[in-house]
Amino acid sequence: MKPVKIGLLGLGTVGRGTAQILQRNAAELERRCGRQIVIHSAAVRNASKVAAEELGIKSTSDGAALVSDPEIDIVCEMMGGDQPALEWVLSAIEHGKHVITANKALIAVHGNEIFEAARKAGVVVAFEPAVAGGIPVIKAIREGLAANQIQWVAGIINGTGNFILSEMASKGREFADVLQEAQELGYAEADPTFDVEGIDAAHKLTIMASIAFGIPLQFNRVFTEGISKISREDVSYAEELGYRIKHLGIAKKTDKGIELRVHPTLIPHQRLIANVNGVMNAVLVRGDAVGPTMYYGPGAGSEPTGSSVVADIVDVVRVLDADPVNQVPHLAFQADVLSDVPILEPADFESAYYLRVHAEDKPGVMASITSIFGQLGISIEAIVQKESSPGEGVSAQADANTVVPVILLTRLVREGLIQEAIAEIEKLDSVTQSVAMLRVETLN
Amino acid sequence: MKPVKIGLLGLGTVGRGTAQILQRNAAELERRCGRQIVIHSAAVRNASKVAAEELGIKSTSDGAALVSDPEIDIVCEMMGGDQPALEWVLSAIEHGKHVITANKALIAVHGNEIFEAARKAGVVVAFEPAVAGGIPVIKAIREGLAANQIQWVAGIINGTGNFILSEMASKGREFADVLQEAQELGYAEADPTFDVEGIDAAHKLTIMASIAFGIPLQFNRVFTEGISKISREDVSYAEELGYRIKHLGIAKKTDKGIELRVHPTLIPHQRLIANVNGVMNAVLVRGDAVGPTMYYGPGAGSEPTGSSVVADIVDVVRVLDADPVNQVPHLAFQADVLSDVPILEPADFESAYYLRVHAEDKPGVMASITSIFGQLGISIEAIVQKESSPGEGVSAQADANTVVPVILLTRLVREGLIQEAIAEIEKLDSVTQSVAMLRVETLN
Repeated sequence: MKPVKIGLLGLGTVGRGTAQILQRNAAELERRCGRQIVIHSAAVRNASKVAAEELGIKSTSDGAALVSDPEIDIVCEMMGGDQPALEWVLSAIEHGKHVITANKALIAVHGNEIFEAARKAGVVVAFEPAVAGGIPVIKAIREGLAANQIQWVAGIINGTGNFILSEMASKGREFADVLQEAQELGYAEADPTFDVEGIDAAHKLTIMASIAFGIPLQFNRVFTEGISKISREDVSYAEELGYRIKHLGIAKKTDKGIELRVHPTLIPHQRLIANVNGVMNAVLVRGDAVGPTMYYGPGAGSEPTGSSVVADIVDVVRVLDADPVNQVPHLAFQADVLSDVPILEPADFESAYYLRVHAEDKPGVMASITSIFGQLGISIEAIVQKESSPGEGVSAQADANTVVPVILLTRLVREGLIQEAIAEIEKLDSVTQSVAMLRVETLN
Repeated sequence: MKPVKIGLLGLGTVGRGTAQILQRNAAELERRCGRQIVIHSAAVRNASKVAAEELGIKSTSDGAALVSDPEIDIVCEMMGGDQPALEWVLSAIEHGKHVITANKALIAVHGNEIFEAARKAGVVVAFEPAVAGGIPVIKAIREGLAANQIQWVAGIINGTGNFILSEMASKGREFADVLQEAQELGYAEADPTFDVEGIDAAHKLTIMASIAFGIPLQFNRVFTEGISKISREDVSYAEELGYRIKHLGIAKKTDKGIELRVHPTLIPHQRLIANVNGVMNAVLVRGDAVGPTMYYGPGAGSEPTGSSVVADIVDVVRVLDADPVNQVPHLAFQADVLSDVPILEPADFESAYYLRVHAEDKPGVMASITSIFGQLGISIEAIVQKESSPGEGVSAQADANTVVPVILLTRLVREGLIQEAIAEIEKLDSVTQSVAMLRVETLN
C-alpha cells in the first residue's frame, strides 16, 4: 500500500515531539498499520526552520499551501492559538484532509463549526492530544466506556496548577512562592492566567463533557474559579480534616441538567486522585455500568503530547478509505442526536462546602453562625474552631478582640443556599472578614 | 439501518451484566452507533433459564445452534472454561460472526488459533472484558498508546489477591485469615488457587504482553509465583523500608528479550499503583514516547465486565461492513509481522531483591552474609538487622541461641546471581532456615 503522508502545522514543543516519534518509531508504526507513515512537510515560523532542518523535514512558511497540497493525507495542527489555526484547519477539511489537532482552545471554542465542516467533507477531526497530553482519555471516554451513561467526569487537567497545589500541600508553601518556582522551572508561563485561573482546564473540560454526555461544545457555559486565592491556611485545615485540595474540572449530569465547573476542590485524601502530585494529570470517570475508572499520566510535554497525536494518526489511517458512516462520531454520539440537556447556573450546582469564617472569639458567635445554617435547612457535617494562630496554643480566657477561624463542612446542598448563608454570616457584627468558600466532592 | 443482533453464550455474572446494559442503555447506544443493538437470544445452562426469563431474553440450551444462526451478527462468549467455549467460538467464526469474549484463559491459551481462524474468516474477535474487567486497558495499550514502543506493563490484575494484600498491609492480618474472609465475602473461590497462585493474572498478562510487544500469546512461558507464602512479617518490614507488597503481573522488554512474570513485588509506597487497594485493579504502562500512564478501575463484576463487552460490541458495529484490512489487528500488530523476540528464563530476569535471612545473633554473621554478596558482585542498597520478635525490645547481650531476621535490599541484579547468593547463604551454619526472597520494582 502507498505510504500515508503527514503534513505538520507547527514544529514547536508538540510538533517536534510528534516528528521525533514518527521518525524513531516508523518501523513499529508500519508493523501496526500495515503501511508506512511518512512526514511530507511542515509549515513553520522562522524560529522553527532550524528544528525542521535538524529533523530532516522539508519546511515551508506557507501553511495555506500545505493544507491544500494534494499529496498530503493527514494534517496535524500543533500551532496553538486561534488564527491562523482555525483558517488552516477549515481549509484542510475543505481540501478533504483528515485533521488532528492538539489545540484545546480551538476545539473548545470553534469545535462545533469544525466538526460540522468535517462531517460535510466526510473527514475525521481527531483531538486526543488536546486533553490531558499523553493520556488516551478521549478514547477511553468515547470508546472504552461506550456502554455507559457517563455520570460524571472529574479531572486534574492542568499540570501547572497541580504542581503548585502539590507543593503547597507537601511543603506548607504559599501560592505566590510556588508559582514563582514553577515559572523558573518552565512549568508556568510568564503570564500564568490561563493555567492558574482555570481557563486551560475549562477548555479541556468542555471537550470531555461533550463526549461524555453527547452535548455540543459550550465553553462559555463553564464556571471557572482559579487557585490563586487558596491560602496555606486552607490547605492545612483541609489536611487536618482528611482532605486534599486539587484544582478539578468537573462535569456532572444531574436530574436538572449538567454542571460544568472548574474550581479548587477538597477531596478525601484516601481517594487515588487525591494522591496525583506534581505536574501529572488524572481523569476520574464514573459510568453507570462500570462505576469509577481513572486515567493517569503526563498531561503535557513534547513526546507525551506527540504520543497522542501519533495515536490519532494511526486511528485515522485505519479509516482512510472507510465509509464515513462507520467512523467513530467526533463527539462520541451521532451528530444529529446531540442532546440539548441544559447547562446549570452555579446557583443550581449541588456540592458539599468548606467555609472558613473569621469571627471574634466571644460567647454566642458559634450559635449565631449555626442558627443561620439551621434556618436555611443546611446540614453541617463538621464544625471546628481553630486557634487564632495555629501552633501557639489556646489562651485560657476568651478575649473579645481575638479573632479565630471557624471551619465548617456542610453536607450536600444547592450552591444558591450556601451563597445566602455566606451573605447572612458576613452581616454578623462578630464576623470580621469575608468568608472563604471551597467546594467538597467525595468522588465515589 | 437494520438493528445489529447479538447472541449471548452464557447468562452468568458477566452475561447478566451485559444483557442489563444492552437493555437499560439501548437508547444511549443507538445515539452512539446510529443503529439499534438488540439481543437476539442466549444459550444458557438450565441454571440460567430463570435469568433469561426475567430479562425477557429468548433462551436455548443449544450453543452450537446459536453460533450458526444466520440472524445473529455478533456472538458474546461469557461462559468461561475451555470447552465448549473454544468449539463454539471457532464455530461462530466459521459462520462469519464477529465474536467478543470475556474468557481470559481461552484467549491466553488458544488465542493464536482463534485469531488465525478469525483472520481467515475476516471477522473480529475482541476481548477487552478478558483483562481487568471494566478498565479499557486493551484499547489503551493497543490504540491509545499506538505511537509508542511499549517498554513495560505492570498491573494489579487480580482483585482477590489485591484485597488480601491490602488487608494484610492495612490491618496487620495473616494471609490465611484474610483469605477466609475473602471467601466469605464472595471475592475468592472455595478453591482459591487460580487467584492467589497467580494463574488468573498470568492469563491476563499473557494477553497484555502480546498487544504491548506484538508477540504471539505464550501463556506457558509466564513465570508465576503466588502470594500464599507472604508473611505478615514481610509486609511489615516492607512498610518500614518504604515499600508496599502488591501481586503484580509484569511484562518487560529488555535488550535480551521479554520478561513475563507474576509475583509479589515490593513497590515504593509513594507510587500511585502502590495505593490501589481492595478489589480494584490498575495497570501501569510505560511507553518510550509517553512515559508512564496508568489505568484504574473495577477488575471484575457483573456490569463492570459487561461494560467492556458492550464497548467491544460498539467497536465491532462500526466495522461490521468494513474491509478487514482496516480493522485494528487483534494483537495490535499486523499478524504477519508478529515478533519472535525470545521470552527470558527466570534466571535472566533483572530486578532488585528483598531477602529475609534468619541468622543466629552472634559476631561475624553479618560479615559472612555480606561477603557472599561481595564475591558475587551484588550491590546492597540497604541492610537492616531486626529484633528477634518485633516490639519486644533488644536484649543487651547477644545470645548465641537467639535467631534474628536480617533484611537485605539489593540493587538491580540478574536473578541467577541472587539464586546463587541464596544458596550460599543457606549453607552458612548460622543461618537457621530458608531465605525468603521477594522482588523489588521501582516502576519509574
